Amino acid sequence: MEIKPLDHIRVVLVKPQHGGNIGSVCRAMKNMGLSRLVLVDPPTLDMDELRMMSMTAIELYENRVEVPTLGEAVADCVCVGATSARRGFYRHHALDVREFATEALESTARGEVALVFGPEDSGLCNDDLKQATHIVCIPSSPEYQALNLSKAVMVCAYELYVAAGNFVPPEETVPDAPHEFRERMFTAWSEAMVDTGFCKEDKLDHMMMGLRRILTRGRLSEPDVKILLGLARQAQWAAKNDLNRE
Amino acid sequence: MEIKPLDHIRVVLVKPQHGGNIGSVCRAMKNMGLSRLVLVDPPTLDMDELRMMSMTAIELYENRVEVPTLGEAVADCVCVGATSARRGFYRHHALDVREFATEALESTARGEVALVFGPEDSGLCNDDLKQATHIVCIPSSPEYQALNLSKAVMVCAYELYVAAGNFVPPEETVPDAPHEFRERMFTAWSEAMVDTGFCKEDKLDHMMMGLRRILTRGRLSEPDVKILLGLARQAQWAAKNDLNRE
Repeated sequence: MEIKPLDHIRVVLVKPQHGGNIGSVCRAMKNMGLSRLVLVDPPTLDMDELRMMSMTAIELYENRVEVPTLGEAVADCVCVGATSARRGFYRHHALDVREFATEALESTARGEVALVFGPEDSGLCNDDLKQATHIVCIPSSPEYQALNLSKAVMVCAYELYVAAGNFVPPEETVPDAPHEFRERMFTAWSEAMVDTGFCKEDKLDHMMMGLRRILTRGRLSEPDVKILLGLARQAQWAAKNDLNRE
Repeated sequence: MEIKPLDHIRVVLVKPQHGGNIGSVCRAMKNMGLSRLVLVDPPTLDMDELRMMSMTAIELYENRVEVPTLGEAVADCVCVGATSARRGFYRHHALDVREFATEALESTARGEVALVFGPEDSGLCNDDLKQATHIVCIPSSPEYQALNLSKAVMVCAYELYVAAGNFVPPEETVPDAPHEFRERMFTAWSEAMVDTGFCKEDKLDHMMMGLRRILTRGRLSEPDVKILLGLARQAQWAAKNDLNRE
């Protein structure tokens, strides 16, 4: 069985306070393909809130590991990223979360990785940060740096997911129109411009440049060119056959 | 006074259901330097939850704009990104949120930008998506694609904030066409399709979706939209006046 990089990355919550936040963290993790949750010394949690916020991701909580200390939570890890919004002693050697995501993914080839988040009110303390191989910061506005816990997890999990390359962009199933077909369509339009009286011959080149500029900004598929060709031909036809006069 | 790109980007929530989510959106926006919130047709909201979740970002709610329709929310925008997790007809031409962030920042040099999110339970409907210049998707695990509303906003706002940090505005000499002008052009085309006999009423929506898809692949300037509007009007006129018959 193939082992996926994200299966080697655990999210560690140190002394999380609110069941709702933990549920919300589970949902964010599952959205981004993470499955391994470790709680360090959690209090008794409000399970109703936890269930409500986790939606169908409650399995992540059910499969959690609980340990009394951060040291135990990351004992087998080769790479430990500790998130911190604060600046100061030891905290200025920070990677931003996008840089860390690359590091973390590379580390999964060599061992286990942890990403650690502090309590909602205070964040990680200096003793926790000491145990990290990397300090990870999430870019945020100087006006208001404190992210909600589950949102901080979401941004980190999102960067890991994108870095892991799991995401397969939606594929186009229809072929691009070849040059020849596009040119037939442009020819039909240049005829339609004259036939409908949209412009005279002397302005035609200028107007066709405009239309070419508009229609070559993105790719054009065969169905696209069919629509455009059909519209031009129909406008020519309509100009020669008065459909709507009584 | 220097105007910052993020000040030209509004977050539009279409029929948001829960006060708590709106508060949480305000906090995420403020974390990422966004300040402009527009609510489309919101219900009566639970203000206690809203206040609790917004923390010190309640000012964003207090400064919100409320409008009855999405059209009004984005009327003056040159770039309208609609978020969608679902796949299917019309939704496969999506940019991922990182690509969109670059587009959006560039567009702020030319006008206003909107990023639109649907109701918590259902997301944006096809009629909403029609009004967008870009469909924006957030990479997420196929196992569980549905992001909580405020988390979806957080990921998008984070990408915009990061993109804004490296942003050098390009110079543009012609203005982008605002939403309202583009919509007049699309209306003229839908009339022209019928008047020229290009298609019957029952195929009109399908054909218009095709045309919208083609014409929203790149930016449309005011001169571009003038050409397209002129062509449609002339085709209508020609269908009613036979120019070329002897």
